[in-house]
Amino acid sequence: MLSIKKPTLLINIDICKQNIHNMAAGAREQKVIFRPHFKTHQSATIGEWFREEGVSAITVSSVSMAQYFAKHGWDNITIAFPVNLLEIEEINLLASEINLQVLIESEQVAGFLSEKLRSACGFFIKIDTGYHRTGVKPSNIQLIDSILHTADPLKLNFKGFLTHSGNTYQAADRNEIFQIQQITAENLLRLKKHYLDRYPDLIVSVGDTPTCSQLPVVTGIDEIRPGNFVFFDVMQFTLGSCRLADIAVALICPVVAVHPNRNEAVIYGGAVHLSKENILLTPDPKPVYGLAVGWDGENWDTATLLGKVSGLSQEHGILTLTQAGCNLKPGMLVAVLPVHSCLTSNLMRKYTGLDGSVIETIHTWPA
Amino acid sequence: MLSIKKPTLLINIDICKQNIHNMAAGAREQKVIFRPHFKTHQSATIGEWFREEGVSAITVSSVSMAQYFAKHGWDNITIAFPVNLLEIEEINLLASEINLQVLIESEQVAGFLSEKLRSACGFFIKIDTGYHRTGVKPSNIQLIDSILHTADPLKLNFKGFLTHSGNTYQAADRNEIFQIQQITAENLLRLKKHYLDRYPDLIVSVGDTPTCSQLPVVTGIDEIRPGNFVFFDVMQFTLGSCRLADIAVALICPVVAVHPNRNEAVIYGGAVHLSKENILLTPDPKPVYGLAVGWDGENWDTATLLGKVSGLSQEHGILTLTQAGCNLKPGMLVAVLPVHSCLTSNLMRKYTGLDGSVIETIHTWPA
Repeated sequence: MLSIKKPTLLINIDICKQNIHNMAAGAREQKVIFRPHFKTHQSATIGEWFREEGVSAITVSSVSMAQYFAKHGWDNITIAFPVNLLEIEEINLLASEINLQVLIESEQVAGFLSEKLRSACGFFIKIDTGYHRTGVKPSNIQLIDSILHTADPLKLNFKGFLTHSGNTYQAADRNEIFQIQQITAENLLRLKKHYLDRYPDLIVSVGDTPTCSQLPVVTGIDEIRPGNFVFFDVMQFTLGSCRLADIAVALICPVVAVHPNRNEAVIYGGAVHLSKENILLTPDPKPVYGLAVGWDGENWDTATLLGKVSGLSQEHGILTLTQAGCNLKPGMLVAVLPVHSCLTSNLMRKYTGLDGSVIETIHTWPA
Repeated sequence: MLSIKKPTLLINIDICKQNIHNMAAGAREQKVIFRPHFKTHQSATIGEWFREEGVSAITVSSVSMAQYFAKHGWDNITIAFPVNLLEIEEINLLASEINLQVLIESEQVAGFLSEKLRSACGFFIKIDTGYHRTGVKPSNIQLIDSILHTADPLKLNFKGFLTHSGNTYQAADRNEIFQIQQITAENLLRLKKHYLDRYPDLIVSVGDTPTCSQLPVVTGIDEIRPGNFVFFDVMQFTLGSCRLADIAVALICPVVAVHPNRNEAVIYGGAVHLSKENILLTPDPKPVYGLAVGWDGENWDTATLLGKVSGLSQEHGILTLTQAGCNLKPGMLVAVLPVHSCLTSNLMRKYTGLDGSVIETIHTWPA
């Protein structure tokens, strides 16, 4: 029985390891490289659970994360974020120590790195296959050629093309995720075909949890880089990527007030714990910041929905209660399944196992 | 010249001290108690700047914050959050050491504290004057009486009525803020009149930055508890509480990519730095997560709007550029004024002064 007094992020290690196993086994069966994104958990301990599944290469989204995981024995890391030129010293140090890959999407950055890198480094050209956040349009062969021309081959080893189809997060259903996957694959495979003669070792890399958890990998895609699946969350549930029972983390929160006249309870658990990420759960017109389920002191119970988190301020969460939540009273605890586990994890900074063990992260690891 | 390589939360100490001075001087002139909310900055160092203005009593929103500030010499603290019964041990310890006030809004909590408190503690009855987050309806005299009847006077000293008009954050203009202020004051003053005979020392306490920064205090109100004004932010600017030049914190972010074809730049600075708090800046139909202004290495310049943060993922921010922002290039830095400084400060965990000095907070203070 855990003694919890204030908002605490719990992890169900069995569920988490099962999620890792499922994705790793799927990649093995389909013979694609599994390079999981570690930005969701940001924990060296959880990283070890991937190693047990044979994972040896990872993805991160900052130089700081690359430094942290390199320190914890990971020697093959892709930083899936546009190169931050201001961190060239840190990149140089990493490139001298591990197999590092960076993303390039402009001639300027290719030129800068060609001049400033002291150790060879791999690079992918980031392709924008529809998300429109970063990357080169797949039709822009001229820019791709000029990046390849600018990149000094003694410093920069071209690894291939990489995309992140974050637009799947806006998909209405699995069919739309499938459509996005097809467009993504067509674009990458066309580029692969175009450049394979010149770069016979090039690979193409995709990676978003909705696609990777719901659909088989398209033939010809070489690498997948999903991250969120390690925990899943309410957003992935609504996208069809997981069951509620597959969500591996929950924020345990004290109930501090009840307002039966408006079917609400107030929990100690706010924007500084869950984050303000929210989703619409149709037909409800109001955004939801989490789902509150039962907590018996040992396990949370996704079969008992007690309420939706319908509002958040800094430390307060407002639960709009279901029938099952009407008996909540101050002093009781509920388990909140987060809308976006990456942001909740980042805010909470560490995990507590159901056995009370503490799992450190980049934020808390003793120096 | 500061050397900044990755997202860094800067504080302009002069602006911050001026904001503190303005609010403290206003309270002095109006002869009301100024009990600032410290949840925005969460820093003992910044707390000292309030002491220089004669502040000796503060507001916090969690037992943890009360512990932190008590350790740093504050001996009169109101925890403006419904009592978390699970932290009764911590509350007992605090009540034995300092003048502590808590909020009560139910008989259950009044009964629990009457039974479990070992040291006397002050309490306010939380009144809901229209925000509908927590509190007793001002018309519910029956509940107020039963709380007062249940509270053991040897353990619980009744201090008065307290409200937070968070509904001012939804106000369309200053007139609506004025209307909310009037309703709030009417309700509290009616209660004050009703109970003053029985409790001649009772006070009524209000506190939200939009009201306190824009309007004189209504006669009869005894205490104000604003918090956000210490930094202000884009939300307060849009509400009319401050000028852009009064915002005391800015997140300095590297530019990592530019996409001139869609007038966008990508910055290293995302939801884990700014938070996903956003606002609508009419007539723009899309939410805004921050305003990017110029940064010359020594100061930010609110007169030069470079872009709006129109999208955020974990580490990425998307800037929709103004004409002035069209020359941004990877490797340059911009200053982002946050939409909600409380959440950005909480995420960034510490502040860097323009002189490079580091200001610790509850999250980073050496144990």
